Amino acid sequence: MFEPRSVAFLGASNDPRKWGYRILFNLKFGGFQGRIYPVNPTKDEIMGLKVYRNVGDIPEIPDLAVIVVPPPSVPQLVKECVIKGIKAGVVITAGFAEVSAEGEGLQREIVEVARSGGMRFVGPNSNGIINPAGRFYSQMPPLFPPPGSISVVSQSGNVVGTITRLAMANGYGCAKCISSGNEADLHAEDYLEYLAEDSQTKVILSYIEGFKDGVRFFETAKEVSKKKPIVMLKVGETPAGAMAAKSHTASLAGSDAVFEAMRKQAGVIRVRSLDELVDTGIAFLCHPLPRGRRVGIVTAGGGWGVLAADACARLGLDVVSLPPDTITELDSFMPAWWSRSNPVDLVAGTFGDAVIRCVEVLLRCPAVDGVIMLGLMPAMPPEQISKAAKEDERERLREALLAAIVQVFDQLNELAKKYDKPTIVASEPLAFGAALANRIIRTLAERNSVCYDMPHQAAVAMANLAWYSEYLRQNGAGLKGNLAG
Amino acid sequence: MFEPRSVAFLGASNDPRKWGYRILFNLKFGGFQGRIYPVNPTKDEIMGLKVYRNVGDIPEIPDLAVIVVPPPSVPQLVKECVIKGIKAGVVITAGFAEVSAEGEGLQREIVEVARSGGMRFVGPNSNGIINPAGRFYSQMPPLFPPPGSISVVSQSGNVVGTITRLAMANGYGCAKCISSGNEADLHAEDYLEYLAEDSQTKVILSYIEGFKDGVRFFETAKEVSKKKPIVMLKVGETPAGAMAAKSHTASLAGSDAVFEAMRKQAGVIRVRSLDELVDTGIAFLCHPLPRGRRVGIVTAGGGWGVLAADACARLGLDVVSLPPDTITELDSFMPAWWSRSNPVDLVAGTFGDAVIRCVEVLLRCPAVDGVIMLGLMPAMPPEQISKAAKEDERERLREALLAAIVQVFDQLNELAKKYDKPTIVASEPLAFGAALANRIIRTLAERNSVCYDMPHQAAVAMANLAWYSEYLRQNGAGLKGNLAG
Repeated sequence: MFEPRSVAFLGASNDPRKWGYRILFNLKFGGFQGRIYPVNPTKDEIMGLKVYRNVGDIPEIPDLAVIVVPPPSVPQLVKECVIKGIKAGVVITAGFAEVSAEGEGLQREIVEVARSGGMRFVGPNSNGIINPAGRFYSQMPPLFPPPGSISVVSQSGNVVGTITRLAMANGYGCAKCISSGNEADLHAEDYLEYLAEDSQTKVILSYIEGFKDGVRFFETAKEVSKKKPIVMLKVGETPAGAMAAKSHTASLAGSDAVFEAMRKQAGVIRVRSLDELVDTGIAFLCHPLPRGRRVGIVTAGGGWGVLAADACARLGLDVVSLPPDTITELDSFMPAWWSRSNPVDLVAGTFGDAVIRCVEVLLRCPAVDGVIMLGLMPAMPPEQISKAAKEDERERLREALLAAIVQVFDQLNELAKKYDKPTIVASEPLAFGAALANRIIRTLAERNSVCYDMPHQAAVAMANLAWYSEYLRQNGAGLKGNLAG
Repeated sequence: MFEPRSVAFLGASNDPRKWGYRILFNLKFGGFQGRIYPVNPTKDEIMGLKVYRNVGDIPEIPDLAVIVVPPPSVPQLVKECVIKGIKAGVVITAGFAEVSAEGEGLQREIVEVARSGGMRFVGPNSNGIINPAGRFYSQMPPLFPPPGSISVVSQSGNVVGTITRLAMANGYGCAKCISSGNEADLHAEDYLEYLAEDSQTKVILSYIEGFKDGVRFFETAKEVSKKKPIVMLKVGETPAGAMAAKSHTASLAGSDAVFEAMRKQAGVIRVRSLDELVDTGIAFLCHPLPRGRRVGIVTAGGGWGVLAADACARLGLDVVSLPPDTITELDSFMPAWWSRSNPVDLVAGTFGDAVIRCVEVLLRCPAVDGVIMLGLMPAMPPEQISKAAKEDERERLREALLAAIVQVFDQLNELAKKYDKPTIVASEPLAFGAALANRIIRTLAERNSVCYDMPHQAAVAMANLAWYSEYLRQNGAGLKGNLAG
């Protein structure tokens, strides 16, 4: 399904306003290297590809069928796929169980036909699936993330798009993305099982509206979470949200209290927004797990330090009192007026290597399980990209800035290895130009690093790493180092 | 203080690593049109400006003194300012009450000296103040927001920078920004009083760690909030945060429960993060106030609709059941398979004007006080910026996209006037290039519009508008239309 050598595309179209055109366009221009067989009874050629009147005419048995035809035609076409011997399908078409009882009947029919021939399928009401490593982008939105370690299972198609976009905005790519739609045949738990064994996938992000088989889901999640973190945005938490979920994908959200109890037992990390979902996923790729909830904060700005301390405490992290030894060590090189407490406020007077030294003192402190570092500016060389500088000078300063940022993150990655503790960074952007900002983000992502924008993002990431770490220890499992290491 | 014709700059420096250089640089190159008198006993010229040995040598009485000298020198220099007859100062220097008992003594000394001569001052431990309309940027960070309607009062300097940056990223400028620092003389409530009368200021954003005089603050806020919304990020909510605030600006955070009760009585809108602070501030500039908490949601994607419904319900908004009349009206032009419930899921099949029509039906519905619209894509013309298009064609498509977005927001602004109800929009970005994205943001801001990135942002904005509206009605005050209208 995810690594097809050949794809039958049922419902191919020449009309750019139709999904039968747009998805085929994404598949073809995404760089898919396998064979594509568009099927349409009335066309001869689409996008330069030979079109087949029906599935039976295709000169081989395709590995996968992508289906984008009106709802009433789907059962018949699935039947033709089954007759042809196709074993996997993605049904994009919507208008089934999520719409009406009639649609629900039609959906049941598809399942019966498919199962009778041993065909399994994604959807219906799916936005598609992608596998960037295979340059396989069989989906509705024109998004082409590079290959990466993040996989996505989502019961909402547009949410897959948002997650993908947010990952890309942080410089991160994807392993497999699955818009599971109505889950008439394959369910979220099937994808979890698959992704647990997928060597490209290091972290699983999921958006869930409800479960077809809650018990099986949690049994599966419990096994998978021992190997890879599952980060979940479960909606339908409120009656209004649950009602919206019902009319969206015919999902029954169920009792949120029951879900909450079960996901905790299954080691599933829960988040409350799409941003948190992606931020947390990336955190697992970048950092070793903290051994506890005790956090040290090093901040370039007092206000950011207070915001982070509040955010940490709200999330159940412990902004520890620093032991006298640590204070004494910091005293030896910090300016006389430093705060002598946690957060360690760099105020003015602590620059360059002294900032990293500060982080290292906290990492070495036995009372600290992980460090939040706020503000990159003090760790930079004193030059600044001045408004007055000439263009060639600005270019040199840009290169120097990028090199300095890379050096900081390389040092932090070294420290993470040395002490096996995370240092999570949030900072105002240092570059105002979009081009340099993008280069910084991409360069950091290449070294499994990330710089969050806001102090509460660092706190959320740390809290989720700490919760998962605790779960693994309590359940006798253990992941060593960060997942990308 | 905010519109000086002349500024004495005490502690001017030629060294780009020093704040005495950087702030002077921002002041001069920010375009200040008044006279600048750098003061430094050992220099003759800095940045092409004649330097004065001491304040007494300046050939006029400057309207304002900016002070960036080491802490022990501040009292003496303030004395010289007083002797000269200067009535206003900004003390940037840090290292006073926030650091030690000795610093606290020094700070008291400055207040006594200043008050003896009728001089009032901002700080110490301030990042500075700005008034973009006067091209007056007397502050530490090199940020130059354009003139606008948002004013900022913050007890953290670096937080002023973050707020300014976030406003600018949304295309919005500032009226006055004040980093109030330790508030030795002028307090947050003084700035509130000033901003209440400032005609440029339409909304006040504040970051508060603690109050010097809580009772006066709330009495002031109660008066001001009848005229202009005050949106506040009050930190020190947790013991860890309160402790961090104490060591940052010597603030006593006080009981959060007491604060919460008082701010509600004073009509102060409370937010929990810097993003929410700016999102909410901008919402007040863009939208009329809803008359209640009942929300209609129109969504281009089912998942986004569920997320928004959950977020609304969590924030105490009511995702109402649509009355039969409204359903019937939507039935008349929506595709047969539409959800027939709130959120109104556009699914496939509703494009262009039909989307706006959908919004209008909800705005007209007497059971709805405001609309959240998720996803701009369906409201766009069917063309898309295809990967395959040639550059000149792409340029034309870019212009068409911008024009289409502007048209949607113009229509929504018309509807807001017609029904006196807000429509708050969140959408995936339609433009992937940074240049076009920036043009869209700026063009929307020029028409007092904003498009949020995420569904929960729209919910937060709506909830805060609704809370303030309720407060005004219960307290017999009323703002008509949106503030910028």
